[in-house]
Amino acid sequence: MSTATASPLTDPLAGDGSAETGLGAALSTALDGAHHRRRVAGRAAFPADGMLRDPALGLAEARVWTLRRLGEFVAAGFGQSIVPVERATPETQLQSLIDFETITYGDQSVAIKSGVQHGLFGGAIAGLGTAAQHERFLTDALQLRILGCFAMTERGHGSDVASLETTISYDADAGEFVVHSPHESSAKTYIGNAAADGHLATVFGQLIVDGVNQGVHCILVPLRDADGATLPGVTIGDNGHKGGLLGVDNGWIRFDHVRVPRDMLLDRFGSVRADGSYSSTIDNPNRRFFSMLGALVRGRICIGGGAAIAARVALSIATRYGERRTQFRHPHSDEESPLLDYLAHQRKLLPAIARAYALGFAQNELIDDYGRVSSDAAHDPRDQRALETLAAGLKALNTEFANATIQTCREACGGAGYMSENRLTQLRADTDVFATFEGDNTVLLQLVAKGVLTDYRDVWGGLDRLGLVQASARLVGGAVIERTGAGLLAERLVATARRKGDATAFYDRGWHAWMFEERERHSVDSLARRLRAADRDSFEQVNAMQD
Amino acid sequence: MSTATASPLTDPLAGDGSAETGLGAALSTALDGAHHRRRVAGRAAFPADGMLRDPALGLAEARVWTLRRLGEFVAAGFGQSIVPVERATPETQLQSLIDFETITYGDQSVAIKSGVQHGLFGGAIAGLGTAAQHERFLTDALQLRILGCFAMTERGHGSDVASLETTISYDADAGEFVVHSPHESSAKTYIGNAAADGHLATVFGQLIVDGVNQGVHCILVPLRDADGATLPGVTIGDNGHKGGLLGVDNGWIRFDHVRVPRDMLLDRFGSVRADGSYSSTIDNPNRRFFSMLGALVRGRICIGGGAAIAARVALSIATRYGERRTQFRHPHSDEESPLLDYLAHQRKLLPAIARAYALGFAQNELIDDYGRVSSDAAHDPRDQRALETLAAGLKALNTEFANATIQTCREACGGAGYMSENRLTQLRADTDVFATFEGDNTVLLQLVAKGVLTDYRDVWGGLDRLGLVQASARLVGGAVIERTGAGLLAERLVATARRKGDATAFYDRGWHAWMFEERERHSVDSLARRLRAADRDSFEQVNAMQD
Ligand SMILES: Cc1cc2nc3c(=O)[nH]c(=O)nc-3n(C[C@H](O)[C@H](O)[C@H](O)COP(=O)(O)OP(=O)(O)OC[C@H]3O[C@@H](n4cnc5c(N)ncnc54)[C@H](O)[C@@H]3O)c2cc1C
Ligand SMILES: Cc1cc2nc3c(=O)[nH]c(=O)nc-3n(C[C@H](O)[C@H](O)[C@H](O)COP(=O)(O)OP(=O)(O)OC[C@H]3O[C@@H](n4cnc5c(N)ncnc54)[C@H](O)[C@@H]3O)c2cc1C
Repeated sequence: MSTATASPLTDPLAGDGSAETGLGAALSTALDGAHHRRRVAGRAAFPADGMLRDPALGLAEARVWTLRRLGEFVAAGFGQSIVPVERATPETQLQSLIDFETITYGDQSVAIKSGVQHGLFGGAIAGLGTAAQHERFLTDALQLRILGCFAMTERGHGSDVASLETTISYDADAGEFVVHSPHESSAKTYIGNAAADGHLATVFGQLIVDGVNQGVHCILVPLRDADGATLPGVTIGDNGHKGGLLGVDNGWIRFDHVRVPRDMLLDRFGSVRADGSYSSTIDNPNRRFFSMLGALVRGRICIGGGAAIAARVALSIATRYGERRTQFRHPHSDEESPLLDYLAHQRKLLPAIARAYALGFAQNELIDDYGRVSSDAAHDPRDQRALETLAAGLKALNTEFANATIQTCREACGGAGYMSENRLTQLRADTDVFATFEGDNTVLLQLVAKGVLTDYRDVWGGLDRLGLVQASARLVGGAVIERTGAGLLAERLVATARRKGDATAFYDRGWHAWMFEERERHSVDSLARRLRAADRDSFEQVNAMQD
Repeated sequence: MSTATASPLTDPLAGDGSAETGLGAALSTALDGAHHRRRVAGRAAFPADGMLRDPALGLAEARVWTLRRLGEFVAAGFGQSIVPVERATPETQLQSLIDFETITYGDQSVAIKSGVQHGLFGGAIAGLGTAAQHERFLTDALQLRILGCFAMTERGHGSDVASLETTISYDADAGEFVVHSPHESSAKTYIGNAAADGHLATVFGQLIVDGVNQGVHCILVPLRDADGATLPGVTIGDNGHKGGLLGVDNGWIRFDHVRVPRDMLLDRFGSVRADGSYSSTIDNPNRRFFSMLGALVRGRICIGGGAAIAARVALSIATRYGERRTQFRHPHSDEESPLLDYLAHQRKLLPAIARAYALGFAQNELIDDYGRVSSDAAHDPRDQRALETLAAGLKALNTEFANATIQTCREACGGAGYMSENRLTQLRADTDVFATFEGDNTVLLQLVAKGVLTDYRDVWGGLDRLGLVQASARLVGGAVIERTGAGLLAERLVATARRKGDATAFYDRGWHAWMFEERERHSVDSLARRLRAADRDSFEQVNAMQD
């Protein structure tokens, strides 16, 4: 199954540890950021080398292997930092993210299986449940005594979570909820842990109380009995072979009037009393919905961080290979040139390495923000929004970067890059879907735009403040408004460049940061103006902004 | 293994045939080009639907399935148009390319297995052998009575074929050749048909006659006996699991002083007489080497065409899905919006569709050129060079486009795009390596640059004709030369735009073509100037042009 002699790619990797001296060690410490020690401890406790799955394992074997590894991960003490809001500290919150990052150095199926079990299933209980529910379910979930699903996506609705079709209807006479999938399109699908292992699911659906739809809520629904047989009213199917993550058992679930007791509704944001009356601490249904989703932001942060790590692993493989692999004789010597001597090769890898560091540092800021905001019950709602915007944006950027970069690395290793034992194709296949789950990238970037515009409105007290610019701009239409904006930016740039000497400006990090901020300000300015100029109620015109 | 209910992606595909009316049919005919009938007949004789491999098949099963399908392909009369130069007509040459394109609509492992067996193994016999060898081996190869390998790449040398280490030494006393892999790095690797099925190989190595190295030649070497056991001196290993193309049994081969009779050397371009004297119709060893490689250009054309088809299949899947899949309610109606109503979604797919047509039309020109040039024994060497340059360039562009586009399509289908039954991840994994084999894309683009510069020198009678421009340019260095070039182009553009009214220019295809040519001329101009300005013997400076 494997080539008998060492592949040229595995040699450089074998030397991994020893190479980390001097500059390498310093860079690695810088990338670990404030949490260097925590990360070193994690990597030592769970070395990635023991975490590599034989890529030739079939679907069934890969699932068994993955579940066993997940058990070892938990036995080593990982994945236990998912705690309810009231017990959260910056430490617990950070640790939960770093645990996830630690395993993504190894097999991504194990990481995603933990993401489903600890982050999503455990996270929904911790983030959406109340004390009694934490008591009853959380430790069992984290310890893998109950394997569970996070059943949000339906066949008909993925990005548009608000339109889920599953109903959670309260039957006041019986004191029970009835969970139901009215149509074929209402079946939950792509749900991790559903096809084989899950016994309990956090199911999202429209909460109907006394005929009134209170919007999307989440309820715990048992799926299988102790022997693994599906319970009455529950139909489960296997999503089968996927483009990657073969170790995760994704499946679909359909509910036919499944009854669960009243205390199974995760009711931190909204609850139903025995008498059938609904109550919530958040009156506005829209705000309630977004608060629920906000409580789940950790998953998105993890996926972005995991993608960043996959990209760095790939870059490390390709760069070490590029240093050692030679091809074509140097014209004036008998030696062959290492690939990295070719500028075309440098151009493939070096800018990506620089970008990987930049994204890594940005991710470190994000996880610090998360630790701070999510452990502070009294946090400013604006901090929460900023956190969500940053998480959405960095998830999209990191995953897009990872997919492009791993592919570049694969090609930079030539034929060796295509051999599964050299990891690149596996990384590529597994990371692919990171662009889609925990929020499709396109939809996330729209979220970022909305978040940024909301801030803008807050600062400027409504877009109407732009009255003056608008008044003249409207006369000549969108394109000219844009040009005016660009003109303003150019003027500001020229003014600044004049104030600073060229030489200082080039090496001044503050100046670079300022220029970036300026660019952001300019983009938001012009987007806001275009939206204002357009009839904001018109789907066609808002849609036009996507172009 | 598969979802019990129809996936949203398979519905649109089921309606494939009926949708091809009106504009669709016209576009499809246009894309088929001059060979519409031939292609329709091919697709009818070998419908892609019956060609889809269960993605969950393991390595061993996938190989068995692929070999069986290859047998059906041959039984249906395909793959039989690989003929020796002397029997080639434009018809045979085109048919051999169209046969390959036909199967790439289905499973890529079958296509590549045929590519190895018919195109490479059969093609090497047809293109590098002489009449007696054609007689003895070609029909058996095409009919799958002998399964064979094309063993060029070695562990140490892939792109740099001229530096292969395998030796083919003539032993005049025995009247035999001795084929040997002197080092571990000399082992052939990634060789299709080697791990399981191949019985005979066309092996490339340095031909040593009477102590003199005559450069790379190709010899037939038996690998296995009738029972499939490797022959004495032959060691074969399995490359194992790959990033895709699981149905192709790639492996490595090492030769330990393996003896083969004198008549096994494929000696169209160079032969060894019984007395041990070497002779060739081409005196210059460098020209001889490139003539041999030129005789193998078909493979490169096939891979570009196969990638183009994979991209079109993906675009067809994603576009049909985008028309039917809805997500998010339209603000002013109760309907949800089809994905293709979002400009962001259009921007992902529509430019790629346009580009797919453009590349398809270019590929049609290329295959016509191939039919004409390769069937004309008396063709102008410049036509051959133009063909090779075009083949290299289009192979690189098509495969790069395919990889980027299939990924875009995968993401445009959201979670459904990641399910293997919907084909996109499989297409992506299989097509990935098209960027690497039959010539690594980066190296091919360097070939194109060299080809274009050689033409330039031919036309201008040596770069020295540029004396005047050079004289002034040298004073101020590379960057300024560039700017001057750009200035010239800009002037020409302005002059042309003035001559033509805006409105006419926009819709005038001749004008667009002229602009493209102008841009090409400008690029070559400046590259030639930069090379001339540099010390052309300096590796560092030529390397700098890659940046
Ligand atoms: C391997 C895997 C594991 C998963 N695990 C889970 C899980 O455990 N639990 C769970 O609940 N879900 C899970 N999911 C589902 C995942 O969260 C969804 O696939 C994701 O949210 C996208 O939804 P969708 O597939 O319906 O795509 P859609 O929402 O239909 O999107 C399809 C395409 O349309 C585009 N699009 C959509 N809306 C717009 C718009 N307004 N403007 C422009 N473009 C738009 C998107 O960019 C995308 O390209 C998983 C999915 C996969 C593939
Ligand atoms: C699935 C598969 C099937 C194959 N089947 C066959 C087969 O049947 N028969 C056969 O003979 N071979 C086969 N090959 C081998 C294939 O042809 C080689 O992999 C290919 O030629 C590239 O060679 P390499 O892998 O040695 O990469 P290298 O040549 O080492 O290239 C590695 C990287 O270095 C870069 N590079 C190299 N030189 C330069 C330069 N001068 N300037 C800038 N960059 C450079 C390349 O762009 C590439 O990114 C197969 C390969 C695969 C993966």
